[in-house]
Amino acid sequence: MPRPLVPPDADFARRVRDSFDRQAFMRLLGARMTRVEPGLVEVELAWRQPLTQQHGFVHAGATSAIADTAGGYAAYTLFPAGCSVLTVEFKINLLAPARGERLVATGRVVRPGRTLTVCDLEVVALDGGAASPCARGLQTLIRLDRPDAPP
Amino acid sequence: MPRPLVPPDADFARRVRDSFDRQAFMRLLGARMTRVEPGLVEVELAWRQPLTQQHGFVHAGATSAIADTAGGYAAYTLFPAGCSVLTVEFKINLLAPARGERLVATGRVVRPGRTLTVCDLEVVALDGGAASPCARGLQTLIRLDRPDAPP
Amino acid sequence: MPRPLVPPDADFARRVRDSFDRQAFMRLLGARMTRVEPGLVEVELAWRQPLTQQHGFVHAGATSAIADTAGGYAAYTLFPAGCSVLTVEFKINLLAPARGERLVATGRVVRPGRTLTVCDLEVVALDGGAASPCARGLQTLIRLDRPDAPP
Amino acid sequence: MPRPLVPPDADFARRVRDSFDRQAFMRLLGARMTRVEPGLVEVELAWRQPLTQQHGFVHAGATSAIADTAGGYAAYTLFPAGCSVLTVEFKINLLAPARGERLVATGRVVRPGRTLTVCDLEVVALDGGAASPCARGLQTLIRLDRPDAPP
Repeated sequence: MPRPLVPPDADFARRVRDSFDRQAFMRLLGARMTRVEPGLVEVELAWRQPLTQQHGFVHAGATSAIADTAGGYAAYTLFPAGCSVLTVEFKINLLAPARGERLVATGRVVRPGRTLTVCDLEVVALDGGAASPCARGLQTLIRLDRPDAPP
Repeated sequence: MPRPLVPPDADFARRVRDSFDRQAFMRLLGARMTRVEPGLVEVELAWRQPLTQQHGFVHAGATSAIADTAGGYAAYTLFPAGCSVLTVEFKINLLAPARGERLVATGRVVRPGRTLTVCDLEVVALDGGAASPCARGLQTLIRLDRPDAPP
Repeated sequence: MPRPLVPPDADFARRVRDSFDRQAFMRLLGARMTRVEPGLVEVELAWRQPLTQQHGFVHAGATSAIADTAGGYAAYTLFPAGCSVLTVEFKINLLAPARGERLVATGRVVRPGRTLTVCDLEVVALDGGAASPCARGLQTLIRLDRPDAPP
Repeated sequence: MPRPLVPPDADFARRVRDSFDRQAFMRLLGARMTRVEPGLVEVELAWRQPLTQQHGFVHAGATSAIADTAGGYAAYTLFPAGCSVLTVEFKINLLAPARGERLVATGRVVRPGRTLTVCDLEVVALDGGAASPCARGLQTLIRLDRPDAPP
């Protein structure tokens, strides 16, 4: 059984939400951070026409953006204060068109590390009461020992 | 030496640009399609504050979105009329922070196919006269035999 | 809750094991198929010196090979008789050096499809009674409507 | 234009070949290192029946193993002496069945770094005089500041 993930910074949730609030791009998309736990973050995106591709579904780029963000902050929950996080790379499978009222992206740490962290990414589409899988990914993050703020 | 890629639809460039113009999400980002050739598409994105993450660089999600779009339309240049394209999956390495005046994403078909197409993705950051590599990816697309338009 | 995966071919387990037995490369590695269920296959590999890289751990290539095989056959459990399976692509994160007595690779279908199937890949290292995560991956497979046998 | 890659260790080629020679798994496969340059390594694999999957082609796992190895050592050419290299992750697209007399895998550094290096991977199948693309990948490597030898 996996050991519980213990954040070294007790104030991790506030730190994560502050950083997310500084992401202008998440505001442009209309994304909201709906869950912050040790090693797990959820980001929600309601369907809006400006987010769509040519068939009227949410663009794979928007789906990927919230998945990448959820994973990045999931890693960040386990960092000490005074560090920042960067995405090294991610891979995402778009399992089904992103239709429905809203998307929920979940990032989960599967391998915490001193330098590198690996996260599972999952996006589900919610429509009425039903949830259907929309995307699945795997992501590598790096911890930088410098403050998480603009230079 | 690779054989030249010959689009079965002589009118491919117009078809690609029309489809791109229907992507509301590319408009939201402010992305422009700057080059359309057989098996190759370029998408440009000028730096704007609403595209940034917490450090003031273009968000990895925006970088990925234009890379995914460039690759998708590179594949689409080689499809017959009356088809549409969907991203099956992509993987992207963020090589360096996306700083500079603008990003140029290039999608190049490396394996055209009846059902599946594989593209190389590359994003460079332009700053003054200098170009520096920003991201690199690999993407799988599927061709659907149905019109490229909202249902 | 995900729907149970129902193989269209009741005889799927025999078909999967027969195909695995025709993989000379799995014999060269000494890999064994230890579990075959609808949408799930396990492949085991005992540590042997000929499988190692320069530090004495199992080579990432061998770890990847059993992960790829487990996922390919997990997809294959859900195919009708008379088809074959090919790996389109996979991505794998090597989470920790592959040390221990043996590796167990598990492939799990997360998105079954008429043409494309997506699998989660997981490799754990077993040492004494302890299991530790060794690799994690994501894979896309394609179904071909031709017999699974050499031409 | 990319700057030339300059290895900090003038003796890099010998160091790379010595390490490759300690990979028992490459011997098991029958792979040979055929080219070592700054930031570029080639590994060849002749077709042999023990390397095949159920259709008689070289197994995707063997193709991936030589691609991973070529990329790992391409990164390693640019490391100072006294370090070692580990694959963090890779993604590979199998473009066509690996038929032909032999496979040539090439790893090329596209982003050298103090901690992380990113490589392009390419595998071609040679048959008579003809070369056809067989696989394409993208890989992330990490440099460890400890000797490249068994503990």
